[in-house]
Amino acid sequence: MARTNRASKRRGKTVAARSALKVVKGSSPAGKPDRESAASRDDTEITALGLKRAPLNPAIEAYFAKCEEKLGFVPNVLTAYAFDMAKLEPFVAMYNDLMLAPSGLSKLEREMIAVAVSAQNRCYYCLVAHGAAVRQLSGDPVLGELMVMNYRAARLTKRHRAMLDFAVKLTAEPWLVEEPDRAALRKAGFSERDIWDIAAVAGFFNMSNRVASATDMRPNSVYHAQAR
Amino acid sequence: MARTNRASKRRGKTVAARSALKVVKGSSPAGKPDRESAASRDDTEITALGLKRAPLNPAIEAYFAKCEEKLGFVPNVLTAYAFDMAKLEPFVAMYNDLMLAPSGLSKLEREMIAVAVSAQNRCYYCLVAHGAAVRQLSGDPVLGELMVMNYRAARLTKRHRAMLDFAVKLTAEPWLVEEPDRAALRKAGFSERDIWDIAAVAGFFNMSNRVASATDMRPNSVYHAQAR
Amino acid sequence: MARTNRASKRRGKTVAARSALKVVKGSSPAGKPDRESAASRDDTEITALGLKRAPLNPAIEAYFAKCEEKLGFVPNVLTAYAFDMAKLEPFVAMYNDLMLAPSGLSKLEREMIAVAVSAQNRCYYCLVAHGAAVRQLSGDPVLGELMVMNYRAARLTKRHRAMLDFAVKLTAEPWLVEEPDRAALRKAGFSERDIWDIAAVAGFFNMSNRVASATDMRPNSVYHAQAR
Amino acid sequence: MARTNRASKRRGKTVAARSALKVVKGSSPAGKPDRESAASRDDTEITALGLKRAPLNPAIEAYFAKCEEKLGFVPNVLTAYAFDMAKLEPFVAMYNDLMLAPSGLSKLEREMIAVAVSAQNRCYYCLVAHGAAVRQLSGDPVLGELMVMNYRAARLTKRHRAMLDFAVKLTAEPWLVEEPDRAALRKAGFSERDIWDIAAVAGFFNMSNRVASATDMRPNSVYHAQAR
Amino acid sequence: MARTNRASKRRGKTVAARSALKVVKGSSPAGKPDRESAASRDDTEITALGLKRAPLNPAIEAYFAKCEEKLGFVPNVLTAYAFDMAKLEPFVAMYNDLMLAPSGLSKLEREMIAVAVSAQNRCYYCLVAHGAAVRQLSGDPVLGELMVMNYRAARLTKRHRAMLDFAVKLTAEPWLVEEPDRAALRKAGFSERDIWDIAAVAGFFNMSNRVASATDMRPNSVYHAQAR
Amino acid sequence: MARTNRASKRRGKTVAARSALKVVKGSSPAGKPDRESAASRDDTEITALGLKRAPLNPAIEAYFAKCEEKLGFVPNVLTAYAFDMAKLEPFVAMYNDLMLAPSGLSKLEREMIAVAVSAQNRCYYCLVAHGAAVRQLSGDPVLGELMVMNYRAARLTKRHRAMLDFAVKLTAEPWLVEEPDRAALRKAGFSERDIWDIAAVAGFFNMSNRVASATDMRPNSVYHAQAR
Repeated sequence: MARTNRASKRRGKTVAARSALKVVKGSSPAGKPDRESAASRDDTEITALGLKRAPLNPAIEAYFAKCEEKLGFVPNVLTAYAFDMAKLEPFVAMYNDLMLAPSGLSKLEREMIAVAVSAQNRCYYCLVAHGAAVRQLSGDPVLGELMVMNYRAARLTKRHRAMLDFAVKLTAEPWLVEEPDRAALRKAGFSERDIWDIAAVAGFFNMSNRVASATDMRPNSVYHAQAR
Repeated sequence: MARTNRASKRRGKTVAARSALKVVKGSSPAGKPDRESAASRDDTEITALGLKRAPLNPAIEAYFAKCEEKLGFVPNVLTAYAFDMAKLEPFVAMYNDLMLAPSGLSKLEREMIAVAVSAQNRCYYCLVAHGAAVRQLSGDPVLGELMVMNYRAARLTKRHRAMLDFAVKLTAEPWLVEEPDRAALRKAGFSERDIWDIAAVAGFFNMSNRVASATDMRPNSVYHAQAR
Repeated sequence: MARTNRASKRRGKTVAARSALKVVKGSSPAGKPDRESAASRDDTEITALGLKRAPLNPAIEAYFAKCEEKLGFVPNVLTAYAFDMAKLEPFVAMYNDLMLAPSGLSKLEREMIAVAVSAQNRCYYCLVAHGAAVRQLSGDPVLGELMVMNYRAARLTKRHRAMLDFAVKLTAEPWLVEEPDRAALRKAGFSERDIWDIAAVAGFFNMSNRVASATDMRPNSVYHAQAR
Repeated sequence: MARTNRASKRRGKTVAARSALKVVKGSSPAGKPDRESAASRDDTEITALGLKRAPLNPAIEAYFAKCEEKLGFVPNVLTAYAFDMAKLEPFVAMYNDLMLAPSGLSKLEREMIAVAVSAQNRCYYCLVAHGAAVRQLSGDPVLGELMVMNYRAARLTKRHRAMLDFAVKLTAEPWLVEEPDRAALRKAGFSERDIWDIAAVAGFFNMSNRVASATDMRPNSVYHAQAR
Repeated sequence: MARTNRASKRRGKTVAARSALKVVKGSSPAGKPDRESAASRDDTEITALGLKRAPLNPAIEAYFAKCEEKLGFVPNVLTAYAFDMAKLEPFVAMYNDLMLAPSGLSKLEREMIAVAVSAQNRCYYCLVAHGAAVRQLSGDPVLGELMVMNYRAARLTKRHRAMLDFAVKLTAEPWLVEEPDRAALRKAGFSERDIWDIAAVAGFFNMSNRVASATDMRPNSVYHAQAR
Repeated sequence: MARTNRASKRRGKTVAARSALKVVKGSSPAGKPDRESAASRDDTEITALGLKRAPLNPAIEAYFAKCEEKLGFVPNVLTAYAFDMAKLEPFVAMYNDLMLAPSGLSKLEREMIAVAVSAQNRCYYCLVAHGAAVRQLSGDPVLGELMVMNYRAARLTKRHRAMLDFAVKLTAEPWLVEEPDRAALRKAGFSERDIWDIAAVAGFFNMSNRVASATDMRPNSVYHAQAR
């Protein structure tokens, strides 16, 4: 089966700066975009599905350009969705709102949830990409590994432990989540809105993990060495 | 804890017909909107979180009006997200694209995936709302019950069985999904794009199931009696 | 493989009223027996096993007649067992004692256990038949759906929650049931005899669920629309 | 909590030989009834529930007498049920039909199913009582241990392996049992009626295991040393 | 595939008494070594792997001789490892230190852990061999069966229950073991060193169970009847 | 609770080169021992148990010195066992034989098994230490991450896939490992002895994972950045 969703196609895109869409900050490798890694062979086939990339609409073209400018690469999950702008746009909007918009949860906390959920689901793509984000945002490479390997082994604050316990239970056995689980979050200092955000981030990665696993999505190789 | 996300607040909204957003067809109770049920007491508190509804922006106001016009009610999941337009808009856009836009999967097939996934996750909200959709779109109340109870007991075509086996494995053990699973879908006649759609619908309900379970989201009571 | 266990054979039976066996009350569709549904095509093959119906003995003949009279149909599980009177008789006797005889548990409570256990085991036959009974006995169609979908989402009394928690744990992980589980029932007001009854009803449906799943037993189609 | 269901109370019962109920043969300790063991302290409290034994009706009195005569003891499960003749009678009738009546399955095969199912459910009572029966009926103490510990480690015929694979799958994941599982039994030589019997025996012990676990039922100590 | 790891080869070994290695006491059948059983046909092929026994080095030769002298047989696990002295020696040294050296845990307690862990892993070899050891060391055949069948059904002291709960959780879900689990052991009176010993014995049998299951290792038949 | 098992205590040991014990090669950070990391604060408390380090015997003293010389540090697992030479010596001997002695499995293959098993058990210590070994021995940092995250996502040879499938099944459900599993290894080219080695390495890490989890063992921080 041919794989045509090639990341190499994204080379040569114009860099339009006017995009209103926020760029996925926090994944930028400490100001040193590693364009060599991003163009390596492993990145040329992003999914197991032979979906042809659609023409980018102006908003997405600008957004991808901004990714290239700030990160040095377009995350492969975006390229994977780029066979259909009608799918890519709400995915980007939802992702950016959940992970980057103002929230009672810090960006690092949201990335910690992303990785703990992805570890429960053993999702290679998300563990690589968001493990890098935890290392970068925390400046603590070991924290990134702990989230990937077993968040229970980390020396977490009560707040963070409650947050991850909720997110992982919601991932593994959502039918068992009940009022006492929400009460534990409130006791740890989370607001009603924070509870929504924890649930929504955990939910989002339960979606993304499955799209990635279903399509054998491969992460940009640049992530592996980031912020070690 | 106070619950302020009251569906009753949505009463009295102007009905603007100009929305570009598609209405969730297929959930309409056979042309007989049951406004009484939609306003019943069970619907007044939609989630366990005390989130205040934000002012609707024009696009969402028009969309909700269209829901009222065509379905006779606004689905509670939309009201639940209405505390923040930045969250509601991409949710609606993603939902409508996945469930209503042109696809190699029929709308009924997409609803069958929704229910089989929600049954694996034992999500009350989604089983009620999308169980009703399966009954309605298929004209077969028993099919709706089979999807809720155990899709393996249904007399399915090979195509539908392969589709649901993939979606449910992806839900229960996403880390085990590999090339042979995709090959089984191709053998059952699904295209590369169809495989994406199966994965994306299954993924979406793995997200929604968890947001609903985390917040104890309650379905509009009107669904229960629809299309029995 | 031929299926000869046809429900249609039961037509034309004499209706003897002298049976000492109690009829499964509570499954009667509100005094309006739907004989058309009971005779529909879906009911003609009850199990995947080609077992020939044995001649009914007088007691069972009277009992089946009483079912027809009061319910409008003979429940398919009885027809399935009717290849051997030596199997059918104790099954009926045990069922009637457990579900209909005097007990500290109401008939509705016993049916709630039946459905919550069958949901854990995802048994199509029992969910359909006893889901209908919960709807009927409670007069609350939503309660029936909650028992089928996730009893934890129902607004239950402490008594009912304790009862179902015990029954479902006993179903899923019987080896973990210990004194604290019994103590929780006593604390919720259940007597020693009530605890036996909860265990016995849960046990019975763990048996029936498996006989039904092993034989692909199909419920009478009349159940689906009952008491919605 | 007082335990009044004392086996010691059964002493002094008249031994009426006219019972039509079959005695549970095969549990008899090789013609050497060990009345001492049967009366030991471990046997005085059979369940964790303080249920008072009811007066035996004549049929059960005769049956218990026959047990004493042939086995040297009344199996504790019968004494546990003896608080209510309406529960004990169908239990005995169902048990005797399933385990002792003519069938395409030998009595040993039925006991093998009983033990393999009880091992999956880790039911102490049934493993002790029916492990003894396997040892006795087979004359092979090691076979009894294999059924208790891991039937997959036994050197079984294809027939026995298929039989136990079906019974254990039906126990652990009944919702996954489908036509290919029945086809595997047919391929191993089992008739339609045999399949019913395998399912019914497996189902029965899924019931009994749970009643025993729920009530902390203790086996007669005489079983332990039988047929070693 | 030929099986050459024959226990029969061990016949005729000289009995050297000078071994510094301790013999696995506690498995000796009450001073009555049953050499007939040990030489039975079941013992002639110990694993499914056709590994040829290596020449014993003097230390192991002496050790095996001591086993023959004290137990009447060489445990099959030792014969299984005897294809390579470099593997057998540290296995014996580790085993003897863990199970026989001075410890805050009695030898019986260590054997109870061995059996409860092996029951969780359903390891036939270890359940047979160490079930016998529990019977022997405790003088209580029923305790041996309880450890094999379901340790939760045993009437254990708080100390023993805490010990086995820790060992079995560590076996089934090691990633969930945390400080509260260690605290429960301390509360039950175990020292820091005792906690290590519980973990080390549980860990050792998680290793041995897997080597035995992977190779289909068969226990010496002499164990079955020991200390019944 | 005091933690006295301080790695800092190991400073100042004489470096005796005469040890016959092999040093754990392959964990050496590319010839650049990072003594700073090895002495960092995270390393000062290795386990949650307050076990005092015993005096090293000459063989172990020499072995530790060799570790310091070749790796730049003593792996924390060795320090953790160093409260008792009788436990440390066979652990080192078994480890070195399994992981470093001649075998049909390459050292990298044995480390791949170590990591895949530890990922199943979510063991932080072993994932960190042996993940580094896979990166180092393979020269492929991505392979190390794949073994940690989900070995099924790696592009493995048939040989390696069969090897890891066996090891992980043996870890997760050892009771299901049977002749077809061994046959799959033989078909992939593994010898009888190779099968033993796969089982023994998988078994060993099932032991080590549990000792590490039970004691909250912390890896030397130097591993994290090795061979990225």
